[in-house]
Amino acid sequence: MQTVELIAKKRDGGTFSSEEITWLIEHYTQGSIPDYQMAALLMAIYLRGMDARETSDLTLAMANSGAQLRVNTQVSPVIDKHSTGGVGDKVTLAVAPLVAACGVAVGKMTGRGLGHTGGTADKLESVDGFHVELSRDDFMRILHEHQIVLAGQSNDLAPADGKLYALRDVTGIIESIPLIASSIMSKKLAIGASHLLLDVKFGSGAFMKTVEQARQLAQAMVEIGREAGLHTVAAITSMEQPLGRAIGNAIELAEAIDILHGKGPADVSELCYHEAAELLVMTGKATNEAEADQLVTQAIQSGAAVKKLAEVIAAQGGNLQQIEHPELLPAAPIRVMLAAPRTGYIAAINAEGIGLASMSLGAGRFKKGDPIDHRTGLILQAKVGDYLTAGEPLIEIHARNEQEAQDIQASLLACYQWSENPVQAQPLICDIIRP
Amino acid sequence: MQTVELIAKKRDGGTFSSEEITWLIEHYTQGSIPDYQMAALLMAIYLRGMDARETSDLTLAMANSGAQLRVNTQVSPVIDKHSTGGVGDKVTLAVAPLVAACGVAVGKMTGRGLGHTGGTADKLESVDGFHVELSRDDFMRILHEHQIVLAGQSNDLAPADGKLYALRDVTGIIESIPLIASSIMSKKLAIGASHLLLDVKFGSGAFMKTVEQARQLAQAMVEIGREAGLHTVAAITSMEQPLGRAIGNAIELAEAIDILHGKGPADVSELCYHEAAELLVMTGKATNEAEADQLVTQAIQSGAAVKKLAEVIAAQGGNLQQIEHPELLPAAPIRVMLAAPRTGYIAAINAEGIGLASMSLGAGRFKKGDPIDHRTGLILQAKVGDYLTAGEPLIEIHARNEQEAQDIQASLLACYQWSENPVQAQPLICDIIRP
Repeated sequence: MQTVELIAKKRDGGTFSSEEITWLIEHYTQGSIPDYQMAALLMAIYLRGMDARETSDLTLAMANSGAQLRVNTQVSPVIDKHSTGGVGDKVTLAVAPLVAACGVAVGKMTGRGLGHTGGTADKLESVDGFHVELSRDDFMRILHEHQIVLAGQSNDLAPADGKLYALRDVTGIIESIPLIASSIMSKKLAIGASHLLLDVKFGSGAFMKTVEQARQLAQAMVEIGREAGLHTVAAITSMEQPLGRAIGNAIELAEAIDILHGKGPADVSELCYHEAAELLVMTGKATNEAEADQLVTQAIQSGAAVKKLAEVIAAQGGNLQQIEHPELLPAAPIRVMLAAPRTGYIAAINAEGIGLASMSLGAGRFKKGDPIDHRTGLILQAKVGDYLTAGEPLIEIHARNEQEAQDIQASLLACYQWSENPVQAQPLICDIIRP
Repeated sequence: MQTVELIAKKRDGGTFSSEEITWLIEHYTQGSIPDYQMAALLMAIYLRGMDARETSDLTLAMANSGAQLRVNTQVSPVIDKHSTGGVGDKVTLAVAPLVAACGVAVGKMTGRGLGHTGGTADKLESVDGFHVELSRDDFMRILHEHQIVLAGQSNDLAPADGKLYALRDVTGIIESIPLIASSIMSKKLAIGASHLLLDVKFGSGAFMKTVEQARQLAQAMVEIGREAGLHTVAAITSMEQPLGRAIGNAIELAEAIDILHGKGPADVSELCYHEAAELLVMTGKATNEAEADQLVTQAIQSGAAVKKLAEVIAAQGGNLQQIEHPELLPAAPIRVMLAAPRTGYIAAINAEGIGLASMSLGAGRFKKGDPIDHRTGLILQAKVGDYLTAGEPLIEIHARNEQEAQDIQASLLACYQWSENPVQAQPLICDIIRP
């Protein structure tokens, strides 16, 4: 095959055969197709689109481009969970041990944060000694022994995706539904869980700005799962305001522990319990939602859920004292409470703005490889719909120093919209897409 | 400015400012924008288009990316001529000396052939000792002394175009009207003639397959000329069958000499005289077409036109004996006359097929840098509309050896379509686009 002819085919609106897609990904991964040809092809794909069959083929070709873990051949069912990323999103930290405590294995690889969105791997590393970088053998051993493992993303899985993503990033070709869907799903297929729950977020703090875009992405991924034999369900959830109250690393982990104790903020707790229940139904552990809810409630009330988190933390070298006593987690030296500048109902909290403020406190990364400070972040004292009197606590800043705490106050206040009249927060879960 | 943001702007259908285009071309020429970003941007331009102002700005930015000859600051008027390329296209070889013989200076840089289309530089090099590679000083000196110069394309003119063209060639981004128009015109603007006649060809042997595409390209280039202050006229001409009778190098030069003697094939002779007359009117040398035709006829009949060709050949080191006695031009050792396989009217001669056959005889290049054989080629004995009896001469093969002459016979015969009924050849000139 000739690369130039394949570029021209997509340029003119053509549809690739499975063989053509496999050939392109194989040769790009090997390096025999140069970046400039792939960049032209990706732009043509961006502007001309790909149908569901092409998207599935691309996903499979990328999943096949490197090592394959096939975890479900050794443990089954084994679930995976993925969020498209948001602000204050500690859902995985709670859902994974909750599901595992209910008897369903969880084999998860988790990413680092970039820009205004945090990463589960960073939040876990708030625990002293915890390491996310696991060999394949350790990953499988811990999964077998503890029915749960929370590792970092392995670079030898779907290397074609890593290479393509880096190219898309520098050529303005990120926001394409088929390319985003295949990128996410290729890594999931390479891990090879039996069931996958996706949390596709929309809103100011999410990658997808509208619910329609989120729905399209969710449908594309559920469709890829269907084609590839990975049972996939996608929840479409709002990221119009930060999730829960804590935004940072150690403070988000502490909030996840609260959720596992049944004492977390209502919005994020409900989302976690709902996602856990969905996974129990998907895997057949519960026959219906009511039964699943009961299992979840049991795991919380019995303390089994938080024990499971402590277990995996310890298995991966972490100090489980910090799970049992979250006050031992690293804490910021400076805490400043910002007060409500006026009386009224909170009408909106710009999640992206809050995420960027947290990043500038050191809790996030401006670019890949930047170090982060696990101690810093923000704790919302009120959420959309709450009524505050001027001077009441609005948001607590956890900073490395006075200066940084001072510097972000104006931009934090700019994240809030106020109303004289009562405001109703939108429900978090908008829709569930099932295969 | 950020390259990724500019790529995204065009990807989303935006329009670039003059500053943005200048910035992009400057940084790409310097190498600070990598090929993979430019490839993505070019594909976005291909699929989203550019308006007339953007196309002019791109052309000027490319023209300004290297040396500028500004020939019209020293000699004025001075004409340039460009053909988009065809099979048997020896028009420049006749028009340039014809116009110069009529008293209008011709400063032309001319390209080499590639694929099925020939190049004027190669045809000129059929003459012993003739060299097309001229320094800028020699170019200007010969133009001053002889009012005509026929040099090879200089690499230091519009280097951005050379770099962009090479990238487009390997990324399937050639066939874009704004990109083709700006590529051609940037080199013309860097030379800096006062008047430019374009011959935009369409048909099986041309780059533009339909008259509509040719018209769009012609209009885009005339518009660029208007914006840039270069008086540009475009003739839209048919390349449905080869032009004239000879296809090759030495044999095409010999046919051009015939045209200058008034003894060339009717179709190509008329085209040459018409283009020469157009240039005389454009530059004000003649006040109208009738007066221009008279000047052309005089230059032919007086021998001044062929003398001008001999003069420039000698000025550039060539053996002018070969112009005065074309039988001294290099000749192929093998000549094979292929006979008409049937009786009837010739309904069509596939120009691309004839061009490819000539290329396989050694007269053209499969890839850049290939050597060519100046002696070989094909001479049509009949053209579209002619009536032949089976066995009458159809086409003469000029080959390096018997084997090559043998090998192309079947594909040559496949280039012909026949009809029982009389066939009328289409007129060569379809339209003239003036500013």
